[in-house]
Amino acid sequence: MKSLLLVAHGSRRTESNQEIGVVADALRAKVQNEYALTTHAFLELAEPSIPDGIDTLIQQGATEITILPYFLSAGRHVHEDVPSIVHAKQDLHPDIQIKIAPYLGEASEMIDVLAAVSTSIK
Amino acid sequence: MKSLLLVAHGSRRTESNQEIGVVADALRAKVQNEYALTTHAFLELAEPSIPDGIDTLIQQGATEITILPYFLSAGRHVHEDVPSIVHAKQDLHPDIQIKIAPYLGEASEMIDVLAAVSTSIK
Repeated sequence: MKSLLLVAHGSRRTESNQEIGVVADALRAKVQNEYALTTHAFLELAEPSIPDGIDTLIQQGATEITILPYFLSAGRHVHEDVPSIVHAKQDLHPDIQIKIAPYLGEASEMIDVLAAVSTSIK
Repeated sequence: MKSLLLVAHGSRRTESNQEIGVVADALRAKVQNEYALTTHAFLELAEPSIPDGIDTLIQQGATEITILPYFLSAGRHVHEDVPSIVHAKQDLHPDIQIKIAPYLGEASEMIDVLAAVSTSIK
């Protein structure tokens, strides 16, 4: 069963963390033909953690997990922290296939979104 | 003359800051019919600062400046820090029209980009 875990940084602001839940809900509806399960997790400062998010998906029957980093730039979090946590979890679950998708900021479509936003106000 | 200032957080990693320059270059090519000038600036940790970015655009002839916050969630930076800096600068230049566009994470198109990235790896 294919599943998707949207991973955000996490914030001290409750509202910011709730926003990620809203994004995950909208994403779930959009990708449900591809992914039977979609949820979210945070690198730090908020719950659920990435390991907890992975555990939840496995408990719900996931056999493949795609990690989708909700980050705009390729800093230490994208290059080291998220992969390190994911790889440690992979070692504990060799029967589950866990992959990390490109981080959001790397998507070529981002330029189109920026252009759309920049021309949306007059 | 309409101009666009892409505002990112700024990082201690030079590569992350350089990425923003690449994004601004790509965005400039995409919006050049709408904006005669497009450049970028950083809230903190990197140069140019937002005031310096605004000054550069004004020196190049900008009479309208749209600030485009390259942020995924509406934390303190989006709600307080960027507006505070922009409004202080607006007070110094009452003849220049400075507007702040919605932050990137608020764009409805972001869900489409997430969906595209999540289905881009097999």
